[in-house]
Amino acid sequence: MSGMYIICLSGEREKLQFAAMAASVAAVSGTDVHIFLSMNAFPYFIKGHSKEAPAEGKLGEAMAERKVPPFYQIFEQAVELGDAKIWACSMAMDVLGVKEDGMEEIVAGPLGLTKFFSDAEGGQILTF
Amino acid sequence: MSGMYIICLSGEREKLQFAAMAASVAAVSGTDVHIFLSMNAFPYFIKGHSKEAPAEGKLGEAMAERKVPPFYQIFEQAVELGDAKIWACSMAMDVLGVKEDGMEEIVAGPLGLTKFFSDAEGGQILTF
Amino acid sequence: MSGMYIICLSGEREKLQFAAMAASVAAVSGTDVHIFLSMNAFPYFIKGHSKEAPAEGKLGEAMAERKVPPFYQIFEQAVELGDAKIWACSMAMDVLGVKEDGMEEIVAGPLGLTKFFSDAEGGQILTF
Repeated sequence: MSGMYIICLSGEREKLQFAAMAASVAAVSGTDVHIFLSMNAFPYFIKGHSKEAPAEGKLGEAMAERKVPPFYQIFEQAVELGDAKIWACSMAMDVLGVKEDGMEEIVAGPLGLTKFFSDAEGGQILTF
Repeated sequence: MSGMYIICLSGEREKLQFAAMAASVAAVSGTDVHIFLSMNAFPYFIKGHSKEAPAEGKLGEAMAERKVPPFYQIFEQAVELGDAKIWACSMAMDVLGVKEDGMEEIVAGPLGLTKFFSDAEGGQILTF
Repeated sequence: MSGMYIICLSGEREKLQFAAMAASVAAVSGTDVHIFLSMNAFPYFIKGHSKEAPAEGKLGEAMAERKVPPFYQIFEQAVELGDAKIWACSMAMDVLGVKEDGMEEIVAGPLGLTKFFSDAEGGQILTF
């Protein structure tokens, strides 16, 4: 595949978890993976922000009870083991007044949507 | 098209309905359709589980009043008439402690995300 | 890119905003952009309906406070400056009993899902 481009918008546990699993699975299979953080998925990647996302429903609650590895840890593995890149939406940074050094270390840097879509040409775009 | 790969995560009526319509429309047009059930979309496909999903908003309520065919029935048609395949996320099965024979008959079997993405190469992936 | 096909289902501000940004960014870059309105995203494009969507979370609230241009205005720009086309799901029109002349002027017309998917062959499909 010529790359997987994952857009994370939702701040709910189930969506973040699945996005992280998708990133991890694709990255360790050798696919070029890029994650674009925006909207309510964005704040979890601000330094010091809680990494616990509220469950949307039954599955999200069951995952916590079963001690499934949380989404943030899976994203870390995708970056460390699979060389996935996590990008911070520059619009979201502006709106929340966050600078580049206010983002967690696993974030590769800020990115605009125009560049993300241009890079994604020919790849798979997934939205969560 | 070299296949449509539909990921169902949300347990809301509108999302399930649209996913079912997409599956049905593509399958009857001769497209190879695969549906991956995970997160809060998954439980509706457990044997004996209610097939009624809560409406997220006005459209979901209006569909029920207008007696639009419900999502589960549309998925059944996609499988029976269009040869669509519905797969149960093996992670979701683990988390809820559901075995393969605990899933409804329209489910083709369990599937891991790695295999799903590998199959989806070159096709369209849609997330709901 | 052989076209971007955006499916808008959610009626929440963050999803509509991101869909509008995606449409606008792609359209002004010369990409052929088609937006399919269905489910709870649909009513905002009915003549006289409020163009204010409720925020799903923190980002949606922050966008309003920061006076980010609202989604409807961004969709208008995508249509006017970038030649994006916005289509009304014919099923949603039926369910709500809305005729073609009941839709806002920026809507190009009614469209069925079968035609939308057929047009989208070879393009990128994004769901919001």
